[in-house]
Amino acid sequence: MSGGGPKYELHEGAPLPDELLLEPRKERIEQVLANRTRNLVVVLDRLEDSFNMAAVLRTCEAMGVQEVHVVRNPDVPWSPNSKVTQGCDKWLDLTRYDDFTSCRRALKDRGFSIQVSAVREGARSLFELKFDTKVALVFGNERFGVSEEVLSQADGFFWLPMLGFTQSLNISAAASASITRAVAWRMEHLGRHGDLSADETRALRDHFKLLSVKQRGRLYGQHVKRG
Amino acid sequence: MSGGGPKYELHEGAPLPDELLLEPRKERIEQVLANRTRNLVVVLDRLEDSFNMAAVLRTCEAMGVQEVHVVRNPDVPWSPNSKVTQGCDKWLDLTRYDDFTSCRRALKDRGFSIQVSAVREGARSLFELKFDTKVALVFGNERFGVSEEVLSQADGFFWLPMLGFTQSLNISAAASASITRAVAWRMEHLGRHGDLSADETRALRDHFKLLSVKQRGRLYGQHVKRG
Repeated sequence: MSGGGPKYELHEGAPLPDELLLEPRKERIEQVLANRTRNLVVVLDRLEDSFNMAAVLRTCEAMGVQEVHVVRNPDVPWSPNSKVTQGCDKWLDLTRYDDFTSCRRALKDRGFSIQVSAVREGARSLFELKFDTKVALVFGNERFGVSEEVLSQADGFFWLPMLGFTQSLNISAAASASITRAVAWRMEHLGRHGDLSADETRALRDHFKLLSVKQRGRLYGQHVKRG
Repeated sequence: MSGGGPKYELHEGAPLPDELLLEPRKERIEQVLANRTRNLVVVLDRLEDSFNMAAVLRTCEAMGVQEVHVVRNPDVPWSPNSKVTQGCDKWLDLTRYDDFTSCRRALKDRGFSIQVSAVREGARSLFELKFDTKVALVFGNERFGVSEEVLSQADGFFWLPMLGFTQSLNISAAASASITRAVAWRMEHLGRHGDLSADETRALRDHFKLLSVKQRGRLYGQHVKRG
């Protein structure tokens, strides 16, 4: 179900990341942590274009959205274009699922409302959505939109008001407009976007510090794990 | 300086578009006209990626932004990916320039404020910008940003608050976030986004009707112009 990049682990004898990182880097990590959330997450349902995959990841990372949940496209491998991500994906928690049902179950267990980008009867404008609870924004395939599986299991639908002849935005543009809107809403109505708990902050700080060590493969790669 | 798709012209003897279009199409055209503006425009400075070119055009069309001004990239032809535009570009007024200076002159003559997306000393947050006057939003090259020519001739700079490690959004994402924000601002503060004058509406209505005729190449193509 899960995925992501290589795993690293601290082990006895290896220098602590704290000893290897310079102050400016540590300060940068604290800034990012202060603007991070796990209460707004993004779900990508069977995307097929590597440029879109990458652009959405980059938007999430830039906007402090820590979690991206990816439902597998049976026909196309998950392959975000690295020229577009520029390596940002290493900072994200990417969870992969074989189907939407298991993705939804995991998010519902954590109390998320599943809001799906789709033009449907009863869909609300993006500008009417509130973001004061846990919200998962779901975006579908570039050509087919979200699957029937998603449509039947959504808590709600939203759409970006389309003012021209065009009937939908490209997924990278739609996700950017939606995420930016959500972040702006949270800043305005909640006073801040970042809202990690103390425990979450501590865990993510350790993880970000590990990822910030240039020699992490050699120092902390699983092959040298001793503990 | 200028560009765009093929040109069509009414001429004696050809049926009027009004006679060929069905009512639902005419109503759709009126809806689009009511949400169209020439007071918010987008400038693309030397883009190089055909996916980005296309995604921005699609966002503009979808958001009622009628004019896109394109400054030539000397190394890469202007070639928006048609799978991404899905043909939306025919509805837009695309003006092309050899350099930014001539683009800027044309926009300044019409009273535009030139606001450039760039992280610079004194740059304002996107969320602080007002859109109650004529504003041109300028986006630069994917790798190099906007040129020195642009930087020295801007009226102001803006940036999207970057909350993570990523230092900038992909251009298609940045443009979408910015344009959506501008449209939402205009709706909230001006009561509406569309603001064509009566003359502009009339001219664009005629143009949209012509473009809506499936046989326009045969009926109105320049090669059959008689007038």
